[in-house]
Amino acid sequence: MNNLVISIDAMGGDNSPRVVIEGLALAAKKNPDTKFLLFGDEAKVLPILNEYPALKKVCSVHHAPEMVHNEDKPTAVIRNRNTSMYMAIDAVRRGEASAVVSAGNTGALMAISKMVLKTIQKIHRPAIVSIMPHRFGRYVMLDLGANTECSSINLAEFAMMGDILAKHALGIERPRVALLNIGAEEMKGKEEIRQAAHMIKNSRMNIDFIGYIEPHEIPEGRADVIVADGFTGNIALKSIEGTAKLVVRILKDNIKKSFLAKLGIPFLLGVMLRVKKTMDPRLYNGAMFVGLNGLSVKSHGGTDALGFSVAVSNAAKLVRQNFVATIREEVEKVDLDELSQEVIYEVY
Amino acid sequence: MNNLVISIDAMGGDNSPRVVIEGLALAAKKNPDTKFLLFGDEAKVLPILNEYPALKKVCSVHHAPEMVHNEDKPTAVIRNRNTSMYMAIDAVRRGEASAVVSAGNTGALMAISKMVLKTIQKIHRPAIVSIMPHRFGRYVMLDLGANTECSSINLAEFAMMGDILAKHALGIERPRVALLNIGAEEMKGKEEIRQAAHMIKNSRMNIDFIGYIEPHEIPEGRADVIVADGFTGNIALKSIEGTAKLVVRILKDNIKKSFLAKLGIPFLLGVMLRVKKTMDPRLYNGAMFVGLNGLSVKSHGGTDALGFSVAVSNAAKLVRQNFVATIREEVEKVDLDELSQEVIYEVY
Repeated sequence: MNNLVISIDAMGGDNSPRVVIEGLALAAKKNPDTKFLLFGDEAKVLPILNEYPALKKVCSVHHAPEMVHNEDKPTAVIRNRNTSMYMAIDAVRRGEASAVVSAGNTGALMAISKMVLKTIQKIHRPAIVSIMPHRFGRYVMLDLGANTECSSINLAEFAMMGDILAKHALGIERPRVALLNIGAEEMKGKEEIRQAAHMIKNSRMNIDFIGYIEPHEIPEGRADVIVADGFTGNIALKSIEGTAKLVVRILKDNIKKSFLAKLGIPFLLGVMLRVKKTMDPRLYNGAMFVGLNGLSVKSHGGTDALGFSVAVSNAAKLVRQNFVATIREEVEKVDLDELSQEVIYEVY
Repeated sequence: MNNLVISIDAMGGDNSPRVVIEGLALAAKKNPDTKFLLFGDEAKVLPILNEYPALKKVCSVHHAPEMVHNEDKPTAVIRNRNTSMYMAIDAVRRGEASAVVSAGNTGALMAISKMVLKTIQKIHRPAIVSIMPHRFGRYVMLDLGANTECSSINLAEFAMMGDILAKHALGIERPRVALLNIGAEEMKGKEEIRQAAHMIKNSRMNIDFIGYIEPHEIPEGRADVIVADGFTGNIALKSIEGTAKLVVRILKDNIKKSFLAKLGIPFLLGVMLRVKKTMDPRLYNGAMFVGLNGLSVKSHGGTDALGFSVAVSNAAKLVRQNFVATIREEVEKVDLDELSQEVIYEVY
C-alpha cells in the first residue's frame, strides 16, 4: 500500500507541536509507506518541521486557527470546527486519512471522534482500547473509559472488537478472550457480565472465549483480550499503573536509604534497565477508539517523541490490516440484537 | 477490660486446625486480656492445643460435628447449625464473644454472619473492609466484595464506617475519606457515586471528605479511607495485589537470568527484605465485615500462623475500642434515608 495516510493533531499534548513533530519524524522512518496530514498553527508547526526535511517530504501542513485545551469541556469544543483536533478527525471522515492521532484532551477527542466519524453500523458503542504488558507478552484491554455503564450487548461487541485487535495488532492467531469479573464461578458478578458471557458463548462469534478473569490473573497472561465496562476497565487500568509505579518507588526509596544497597546497584543496573524497558509505558502508548468509521488514536499527553511515534505506528499497522473493515465484516455475521432477546428470554 | 472474648472457627483455612491454633498462640501472647472460644472437631483440635499450654489456659474448646468446606455454596451451608463456622458466629449473637475470626469460605462466612448477627439498625448493608499499605502508611478500603451493586446511601454508610475504622484501627485522628472514581471532576463516574458525594458533603456526618480519588492515587497515600461499591473495590484490590506480585516476579525472573545481577544480591538483600516486610500480606491479613451486630473477621485461607494472629489481634483491637457501638452511635446521629430524599430532589 502506498497511500496510507494518517492525520495528526499537531497541537495536542503537553509539549506540542515539538514532541508531536519529533515523534512523527521517528514514525516516518519506521513507516515509509505512510503520509501525514498535519493540522495546527502553521506559525508554530512549520519552523519545527523545517528541522526534519525527510519528514517534511511526507507531510502536508494544514493551518488550524484554534486548538482544544486540556481544561476544555468536551461539550464546549465539540462543534468548533476550527480546532486542530476537529480538523484532523474530519480528514478521516472526508476519506483523506484512514486514522487520526492526537495527544490532546481525551474527552474531547472521544466526543468529536464519535460525532464526526460515527459508530459503525450495528455497533452500539465505541470503546477505548489499550495494549498492555503481562508477564509473558502483551494483551488487549477494553473498554478503558468510553462507557461508564455497559449492557451485555456492548460487552459482547467489545469482545469481538478486542478479538480482532489482538489478531491484527498482536499477531495472535486465536486470542483467548475473557470477561473481567470478581470471581471465576458462573454466578459471580453483575447481571450484564453474566448475560454477556452467555451471549458470547451462544453467538456465532467465532472467538475463543475462556470465561471470567479476575484482575490478579491478568499479569499472569491468562488471556489475550480482557473485556470490561468502561468504569471497571478504567479502575483496573489505573490500579495496575499506580501499583507498578509504587513498587518501583518503594524499592528506590529503600535503596537510597541504604549505603550497602547503593554498592549493589552496578551489578543490578542491567536487570533494572531491562525491567524498565519491559514496563516502559512509552512502548504501550496509544489508546485506540474502536467501533468508529475510522480509527482514532489517543496518545498520552505527557509522552515524549518515542511514545508518540509508537501511537502513530500502531495506528498505521491497524490501517494496513484493514482493521475497521474487518470489524464491519464481523458485525455483519452476528446479529447481537437478535441474540440479546434470546438471552433475556433464557436468563429470566 | 478483662473479659474480651473472641470466638474462633478452628476448622477454616487451608491447614486448619494447626495454623489456626499456632496463630492463636501468637495472638494470645500479644493480647493477654483476651480469651478464646474455639469451635471445631475436638479430636483434631485438642491434641494440637495440648502443645500450647499457655494458650490452652485462655481457650475453651467447643465440639462442632461438621465444617464448611471451601467449595460449599453459601446457600447450601447457611442454615447448618452444626458447622464450626456457624457455631463460632452464633457465639457472638449469644453475647458470649464480641468478635469471630475464620479463615474459611468467604461467601459462607459473609452469608452466615449476615443472617445470624443481622445488620445494625439503620445500616442498610454490611461491607467488607481491609487495611492496606500505601507509600507512607496504611489506609482502609471498603467495600471489597460484599455488595456487587451499591446505592448512594450504601456508599455514604461505608464512608462513615470506614472513617470510624480508620480512627480506631489506624489511630488517625481525622481520616481523609474519598470515593473511588475514574476522574476528579465533579461530573465524572456513576450517578450513585456523584449522589453519594453530595450526600456525604451535606450530611451531618462529621468526616473529612476530600472528594474523588482515582486508583493510581491510592498508593501515594492521598486518602486514609477509600470507599467503593463491592464490585469496584474488589476489582481495584485484586488489580493492586496482582500487579505488586507481577513487578516483584519480573524483577526476580530477570535477576535469575543474569550472573552479574546475582553478584549484586548480597548488597541489596537488606533492602529487599525491608520492602518485602513493608508489603508482607500477612501483616495486612483480616478482612472485616462491618455493619453487623458484632465483628466478623475473615482471615486469608492460605495464610500462616503469623497472618492468622494479625487477623485476631485486629479483631481484639476493634473490640477494645467499642467499634461496633461507635458505629451504632454515629448512625443515630445521621438519618441517611431522609438525606437521600433531599439528594434525589436536588439532583433531578
